Amino acid sequence: MSAQTIQADAIGLVEVHTFQHGGPLVLQNGATLQNFELVYETYGQLNSARDNAILICHALSGHHHAAGRHHPDDAKPGWWDACIGPGKAIDTNQFFVLSLNNLGGCHGSTGPKTINPETGKAYGPDFPQVVVRDWVTSQAKLADHLGIETFAAVIGGSLGGMQAMQWAIEYPDRVRSCVIIAAAAKLSAQNIAFNEIARQAIVSDQNYLDGRYEEADKIPNRGLMLARMIGHVTYLSDDGMGNKFGREVKSGEFDQDESIEFQVESYLHYQGRAFSKYFDANTYMLMTHALDQFDPARGHAGDLAEALSAAQARFLVLSFSSDWRFSSQRSQEIIDALITARKNVASAVVESEHGHDSFLLPLTRYTTIMKTFLQRVLDEMREGGA
Amino acid sequence: MSAQTIQADAIGLVEVHTFQHGGPLVLQNGATLQNFELVYETYGQLNSARDNAILICHALSGHHHAAGRHHPDDAKPGWWDACIGPGKAIDTNQFFVLSLNNLGGCHGSTGPKTINPETGKAYGPDFPQVVVRDWVTSQAKLADHLGIETFAAVIGGSLGGMQAMQWAIEYPDRVRSCVIIAAAAKLSAQNIAFNEIARQAIVSDQNYLDGRYEEADKIPNRGLMLARMIGHVTYLSDDGMGNKFGREVKSGEFDQDESIEFQVESYLHYQGRAFSKYFDANTYMLMTHALDQFDPARGHAGDLAEALSAAQARFLVLSFSSDWRFSSQRSQEIIDALITARKNVASAVVESEHGHDSFLLPLTRYTTIMKTFLQRVLDEMREGGA
Repeated sequence: MSAQTIQADAIGLVEVHTFQHGGPLVLQNGATLQNFELVYETYGQLNSARDNAILICHALSGHHHAAGRHHPDDAKPGWWDACIGPGKAIDTNQFFVLSLNNLGGCHGSTGPKTINPETGKAYGPDFPQVVVRDWVTSQAKLADHLGIETFAAVIGGSLGGMQAMQWAIEYPDRVRSCVIIAAAAKLSAQNIAFNEIARQAIVSDQNYLDGRYEEADKIPNRGLMLARMIGHVTYLSDDGMGNKFGREVKSGEFDQDESIEFQVESYLHYQGRAFSKYFDANTYMLMTHALDQFDPARGHAGDLAEALSAAQARFLVLSFSSDWRFSSQRSQEIIDALITARKNVASAVVESEHGHDSFLLPLTRYTTIMKTFLQRVLDEMREGGA
Repeated sequence: MSAQTIQADAIGLVEVHTFQHGGPLVLQNGATLQNFELVYETYGQLNSARDNAILICHALSGHHHAAGRHHPDDAKPGWWDACIGPGKAIDTNQFFVLSLNNLGGCHGSTGPKTINPETGKAYGPDFPQVVVRDWVTSQAKLADHLGIETFAAVIGGSLGGMQAMQWAIEYPDRVRSCVIIAAAAKLSAQNIAFNEIARQAIVSDQNYLDGRYEEADKIPNRGLMLARMIGHVTYLSDDGMGNKFGREVKSGEFDQDESIEFQVESYLHYQGRAFSKYFDANTYMLMTHALDQFDPARGHAGDLAEALSAAQARFLVLSFSSDWRFSSQRSQEIIDALITARKNVASAVVESEHGHDSFLLPLTRYTTIMKTFLQRVLDEMREGGA
């Protein structure tokens, strides 16, 4: 065991690394990126057998900084610090955890803000539309670079869960287990509708300028704020919001706009405004389109079981009772297909009032199930077979 | 019986009337309108006892034109024509139906588009914020004008249901029965959040100009379109949208924007664009604030049963299984309070996949229940007691 076992359950300081892929990548839409970079972080130690790696796939607004802190005085740790760390659900005492910013992202990996070598200007809206499969392909290049042949687990929530599923389909022999949380095998019409409304909010911002806002030194932050507000409401549950805010009038804790009457409005303004300061509009457009387009069954006449037939991983499919953006019914469709395809699948619907955002929280039943599942994967590896 | 009984179930041509209230109206917020006009329509005949009148209260985007056609070549009849007409749920062979455009509306009644006599310019954003109680007060003035002392029924869906509830509270002796459909005794935090996002979509439109767009000869139609798209998605159900659109790609039936990929996006664009051409942004702001603020229990320490204690009406409370904007749980809160207050209440949750919009549709169980309820009210009146 590593020295980390003597720490408490905090990872401590973490560093950002950059992977340079010094060659072309042909994307699913036919476009070619001449080269690309991915920023990533790792937590825990890769063992000598190089078989204890876990890949974390992020969701719509996520990034590589999943756990720990960059500086001792960081106000907050990474976005999934509640679940990743020594002794936590994803136990860095046992696993080597890899977390990256996806291609097309806005946190350091090659994306719309990157300089396009062909024009000398940032790609902006001309960055090619990547899809979930492109992310998986580029993540595999990073795994190659790190000498990881097989992941002990690929884990993701929401859009991250879609990547985990695609991994199991695309690289059956490189994924020992696959944890799909609060996801869906494809978006529903309502899901697509909410994404389109968020996109229209961005496009309608006078500063969006067809995505060429950086050239004009503008930022479409009203549009991004609105997009985030829409997303945020749909990530929470009616009951959860009711318990958190009810019909309380604004208290001054969040935004103080004079037009605001209720605390819930104030909170949404605050969230939306904060998001608009750190997220890129072109990345938001790209990520939501990738979400809309994910549908691994499409190439199999709509038969998801058929699409999953090649997978060899042990699956864990989790959903949350109050999540209405990616409801348990959507997870059940994945579970049903896995059963039909005769795969090894465990699943649970976790009671929670926190809606879609539940997947980010250290809910006891949720973390216990995930930790136990991963421990079993490790035990099976040690016994020499999965 | 009137000559209308020999017609089919269509009302035929209807006329718009205007009620001039030639005096001041003091609003709940303390502001005074020196006078006001309400446009209205009537269907069926007021009997000699003047006791067969039904008041229809409209929802957020509704208006006075609830049934029939203004011109023989109108493409569509009024918004509730499915439920109002000879032999229909609200039977114009038996009842005299009154439908008006609310104060603050944008379809002819005094509202933001009206010239403010004090400035000689349209009120615009300076039109005073009216609330549900102000609507009920102004509707009562119209009833006085028409010589209607007591309504056989006051009926409304959504925001209209809130008006019906307020009528029963405010004028106990003027409401024989009260039909509250797909409504709530107050908005939840999630409801308020969706309204605030819609308002922010309007405010963010560069043409909104703090509501002074008419003076500048502009229309914030992008903002209105977005607001309507948000509303529309929340008025439908996930399953209903799935059955209607699934993940079909756009077909050309609706909007054809080249950025559009799925049929559901195309449909929402079409709906939003159409709405932005006939609705006024300041009215939208005003109506949503009125929705947010409705809470008759507020003056009774949050006790809805106490708020309803004065009511004398027979109540019918209806909701729809797939309505998540105003769920059956919200209706149950009203029913529970009515039971606690020892009122006469019938209720039903109608199975429907059409979400909140179900209240506009002629669903068999729904219309049968409403028709039977209203027939019983009539029978009791004829027997001389309610």
